[in-house]
Amino acid sequence: MKIRVGFGYDVHRLADNRELWLGGVKIDHTQGLMGHSDADVLIHAICDALLGAANLRDIGFHFPDTAGEYKDIDSKILLARTLEVITEKGYRIGNIDATICAERPKINPHIPQMQKVMAGILEISEEDISIKATTSEKMGFVGREEGFAAYAVALIEK
Amino acid sequence: MKIRVGFGYDVHRLADNRELWLGGVKIDHTQGLMGHSDADVLIHAICDALLGAANLRDIGFHFPDTAGEYKDIDSKILLARTLEVITEKGYRIGNIDATICAERPKINPHIPQMQKVMAGILEISEEDISIKATTSEKMGFVGREEGFAAYAVALIEK
Amino acid sequence: MKIRVGFGYDVHRLADNRELWLGGVKIDHTQGLMGHSDADVLIHAICDALLGAANLRDIGFHFPDTAGEYKDIDSKILLARTLEVITEKGYRIGNIDATICAERPKINPHIPQMQKVMAGILEISEEDISIKATTSEKMGFVGREEGFAAYAVALIEK
Repeated sequence: MKIRVGFGYDVHRLADNRELWLGGVKIDHTQGLMGHSDADVLIHAICDALLGAANLRDIGFHFPDTAGEYKDIDSKILLARTLEVITEKGYRIGNIDATICAERPKINPHIPQMQKVMAGILEISEEDISIKATTSEKMGFVGREEGFAAYAVALIEK
Repeated sequence: MKIRVGFGYDVHRLADNRELWLGGVKIDHTQGLMGHSDADVLIHAICDALLGAANLRDIGFHFPDTAGEYKDIDSKILLARTLEVITEKGYRIGNIDATICAERPKINPHIPQMQKVMAGILEISEEDISIKATTSEKMGFVGREEGFAAYAVALIEK
Repeated sequence: MKIRVGFGYDVHRLADNRELWLGGVKIDHTQGLMGHSDADVLIHAICDALLGAANLRDIGFHFPDTAGEYKDIDSKILLARTLEVITEKGYRIGNIDATICAERPKINPHIPQMQKVMAGILEISEEDISIKATTSEKMGFVGREEGFAAYAVALIEK
């Protein structure tokens, strides 16, 4: 068995009049994340960790933000396609551990639902997808509430 | 054998009249890190990497900063409890690699002592816990000396 | 077989009248990265991930920026020496996944060449070194074009 590691990092700006989607779940907040898709920064970081582990470039390569077909697309669709391309290459997911950096709102109450939604799409146990959240203690662009960042690591196996 | 990966990220603000604790070691500096506990940002990142790998939520979930019992607590106690909860779930630590981001003071001279202290608590060889340090080249909140950040990755096995 | 994980993070400032080197490849841009060596932030992050995985300290420990012999050195030499020290310790590289954070210029067109150059030095298949790139959406020091950051994870085996 060959095991490989991947790492994903993504950021999106906060803006008024946008829905906030994180980990495939809609969260009530005064602002949402801005992007060509629904800007689900957590799903994007996880896609990049999986694609990077499989050496399949990144989410921008597979789903370019210049392509009209991805405008406002639900990132859960991008996550499902990511699973397809790594599966086609013969890999299966070992585990995923991701971290959301957001000053507000409270993310923790939504984590079990995010795990359920993403595990369903990725066809893995909820046990194999961990989500954590942290603030940036009011420092930096996350701390000033200009945007959110997300990190993810993943192991995949062949 | 099942191998899992975890990733931890933590930040704390610098403040006057606080002791600086990093990796379980007290370091002489003009400022210290602020937090509910002793604010040992390196231990917190390592706890989060281990908890994330084991899908056991994060340090804020196990040791909430609203709980009086954790006020000013020595983070070495949190590290020991982290080992307990991952061990109870049947995991043992493979290796840990962590990075401290701090503009000042020089961290490198203290790394061997941090490895010794944390390896002792985690009941692993010093060979299995690597610590690195970098500045942020005066950029961002770390570069402006508003705070420190720490990253950690870990492999655990069952 | 023992598998170990490592993580590297590095940043460098942008400055006028410097060449821009990333992943061992010279890229046309209005500015370059500043540092004691050629400031190839991507190679530095990858070196740190490999050294951290092998518990061999970090790039600053092996190639100190106070040493005249490393002034303006080609980071490809540092990458080759990193391979030497981890090989001497009995490790071989499993896979590497790295992420460049840069607001400009476009990095993606250069990635296949970076993979080729670094795989050659590391004596691995291009399949085992993944490179991704992202902007910081104009936020933070990367977004303000003060500098670039790079992250890398690596698995090594004994």
